[in-house]
Amino acid sequence: MAPSRSWLSISADSHFSLGNIPFGIITSRDSQNEKRPAVAIGDYVLDLRAFAAGNGFSALSSFKDHLSVLSQPTLNAFAALGRPVHREVREYLQEIFSDATSHPDILKDNAGLKKSALLPKHETKTHLPMQIGDYTDFYAGLNHAFNVGTMFRGPANALQPNYKHVPIGYHGRASSVVISGTPIRRPNGQILLDPTADPKVPTFSPCRRLDIELELGCFMCNGNEMGEPIPIKKAADSIFGFVLMNDWSARDIQMWEYVPLGPFNSKNFGTTISAWVVLADALEPFRAPKLANETAILDYLKEDREDTVYDINLEVDLTTAEGNTTTISKTNGKNLLWSFTQMIAHHSIGGCPLATGDLLGSGTISGTGEGDLGSMLEMNQAGKKDIMLAGMEVRKFLKDGDTITIRGICGGEPGAYVGFGECTGTIKSAVVLT
Amino acid sequence: MAPSRSWLSISADSHFSLGNIPFGIITSRDSQNEKRPAVAIGDYVLDLRAFAAGNGFSALSSFKDHLSVLSQPTLNAFAALGRPVHREVREYLQEIFSDATSHPDILKDNAGLKKSALLPKHETKTHLPMQIGDYTDFYAGLNHAFNVGTMFRGPANALQPNYKHVPIGYHGRASSVVISGTPIRRPNGQILLDPTADPKVPTFSPCRRLDIELELGCFMCNGNEMGEPIPIKKAADSIFGFVLMNDWSARDIQMWEYVPLGPFNSKNFGTTISAWVVLADALEPFRAPKLANETAILDYLKEDREDTVYDINLEVDLTTAEGNTTTISKTNGKNLLWSFTQMIAHHSIGGCPLATGDLLGSGTISGTGEGDLGSMLEMNQAGKKDIMLAGMEVRKFLKDGDTITIRGICGGEPGAYVGFGECTGTIKSAVVLT
Ligand SMILES: [Ca+2]
Ligand SMILES: [Ca+2]
Ligand SMILES: [Mg+2]
Ligand SMILES: [Mg+2]
Ligand code: NI
Repeated sequence: MAPSRSWLSISADSHFSLGNIPFGIITSRDSQNEKRPAVAIGDYVLDLRAFAAGNGFSALSSFKDHLSVLSQPTLNAFAALGRPVHREVREYLQEIFSDATSHPDILKDNAGLKKSALLPKHETKTHLPMQIGDYTDFYAGLNHAFNVGTMFRGPANALQPNYKHVPIGYHGRASSVVISGTPIRRPNGQILLDPTADPKVPTFSPCRRLDIELELGCFMCNGNEMGEPIPIKKAADSIFGFVLMNDWSARDIQMWEYVPLGPFNSKNFGTTISAWVVLADALEPFRAPKLANETAILDYLKEDREDTVYDINLEVDLTTAEGNTTTISKTNGKNLLWSFTQMIAHHSIGGCPLATGDLLGSGTISGTGEGDLGSMLEMNQAGKKDIMLAGMEVRKFLKDGDTITIRGICGGEPGAYVGFGECTGTIKSAVVLT
Repeated sequence: MAPSRSWLSISADSHFSLGNIPFGIITSRDSQNEKRPAVAIGDYVLDLRAFAAGNGFSALSSFKDHLSVLSQPTLNAFAALGRPVHREVREYLQEIFSDATSHPDILKDNAGLKKSALLPKHETKTHLPMQIGDYTDFYAGLNHAFNVGTMFRGPANALQPNYKHVPIGYHGRASSVVISGTPIRRPNGQILLDPTADPKVPTFSPCRRLDIELELGCFMCNGNEMGEPIPIKKAADSIFGFVLMNDWSARDIQMWEYVPLGPFNSKNFGTTISAWVVLADALEPFRAPKLANETAILDYLKEDREDTVYDINLEVDLTTAEGNTTTISKTNGKNLLWSFTQMIAHHSIGGCPLATGDLLGSGTISGTGEGDLGSMLEMNQAGKKDIMLAGMEVRKFLKDGDTITIRGICGGEPGAYVGFGECTGTIKSAVVLT
């Protein structure tokens, strides 16, 4: 159990309580070019390189030989040490920050180390937490798949025949994954102005149907050799932690390009993730059952327990260039038919090699109601309905200057939240080609 | 012009004439753990790290400040120097190896450096030439797309409406790209034994329709910032060079999984590339026109010239476990509707960031006849016809123990071939899950 109180003043509504301790990569005002690992706690970050250099880990002898991972510009080396090490380090840091720490000399009463290692968060900048070798986006949000399928094929045929047998996924573009706060340029591309014309003739245009996809991202801490699948019982050992993800999507480009090989330019112009990786252990108290699957699934996807997704309260804010902010969705991370452990088992079943730093996306997370949808395509009912915003603004899709901010938080008790911070991005106008 | 004769004895049928000088990554018998750049020439490789250490580049002063790139375990750093540098270094090495070299002291008459840097190829081992950030597979082989489309939709609707407007592609799995010679395990996965059943119920099985895809691969030497497309007129500057590629494909897994997001486990269990990167400059003499596209394409895809693909003679051998070898295809690299420069312009048009080391696949290259097909699916006419092999063996798809070897060679003049060497892989039995 995490100790519940810290000697550090942490506001009761912080995403980064003592029960969280998420990992990220920072630079600071004083060393703007040196990316290094840190953890977030309250309104501070603990610079782990500085903490290690100041003997912060002197009471964790098992970690002594691994301190070099804290001088790396990504979390890959730390992640690759494996879940038992992540657990040990997280629990150690919880103890160090605890009111009742048995090592007050290390940080609590060490003014010098507090000054060098415990930095006000607003004086630091976050960067991509991991070097992402490959990024795969799944489609495990059953309600989203059903909602979108209903638009195109009606409710009876909404889900494809494979949907409840296969954790459907596609390979995404690793190079376009960016950290929260990075502006997103509206893509240009080929769109069909008249989809009913014969022959179909595309127009070159800035995307007119720029959308969001509210997702969870999962970072792998280790993987498998090519040809050697990860059994589902061991899949959890490969999970480092989780982030929020916005898989920005150009619906009009997608509609024209995606047959027969799937989404391409409609998805690869940017995917935003939140900065702080919430470790798998931090989410343990918030396990929840997956959505029910009445279909008999194959053995390699069967899990010992049903509570393999997480109860995470998710919300999406849209802030217009005029400054009006509207919460356009409130939903929950439970809305998945497949868990990340199932996705890992499926991804590797044919022998595909997964690796430290790989990013898996859940697919769009939607509920079954009206205010709990993970994409604007669902909110506007395939273009039929306006999405009403504060200040009497309306949207069907995103306008230039719009900012989307996703937040996610677990737990109901002030002072004990385990949150993800935010995943935000602002739309810039499309490039004008000359 | 490349000088035509070398002081080194190079057999007339070698893929690696003085006109080629392809780049790769080797280890040698004497230093098995030190990956380093090399070029292939005849039956030798020139270890570029050793060559540089022995003052081999002393007569190329412009390259003096860049020698550290030759101590890297991949070609990425060398590639990132850009095409003018690749050109200079290649031409310099051609001069050094030329009969009439004006610097015989550097290598020709330098027994010590010959001994340390010019290694018999059979004493070296090749490795992946580049660290691949992202891998994208296109579908530019018009005849292949037409042949496969005809099987499923008849000739009138064989090509999708987007095919002649969009260089269709999908994101592949970078981690599963392997060097020629790496064994390929038959993937397990979900397949439909009865595609007409209702409801459709998948079976877990080793792939029963394991196929090849004969492709060309293109390595990028540099890319673009996110949000800033590469104009087609500059796309050639981003090309480092080319390799042969076999995009192994599990047709039965693909058929069940690919709707709606494209191929996934059917493609990510292994993609084999040849070891030696033939530089873009080496292929200049073999430019050839693309397949005609009567469709009006959008401006961002228009090229100044039509000869933006290459006249490469390609062939595919199948060698059975019994040792019978049959050439099952002879075709040509000209069979593409889209050039790599068009693929690059399209890939980046929405802002997707491309980077040094990215690998682009052409898509399956087939002709329009019977003996010139790039996949077994086409050769067996969707399972209807046996592919006859030497020794009266037959195949529809690959058996365990089968070896596929792709070769590619340009030029008609013995002693002046520009070839790719081979791209080979042997099928191992599927993992038996317990
Ligand atoms: Ca998505
Ligand atoms: Ca392919
Ligand atoms: Mg995306
Ligand atoms: Mg492949
Ligand atoms: Ni990748």
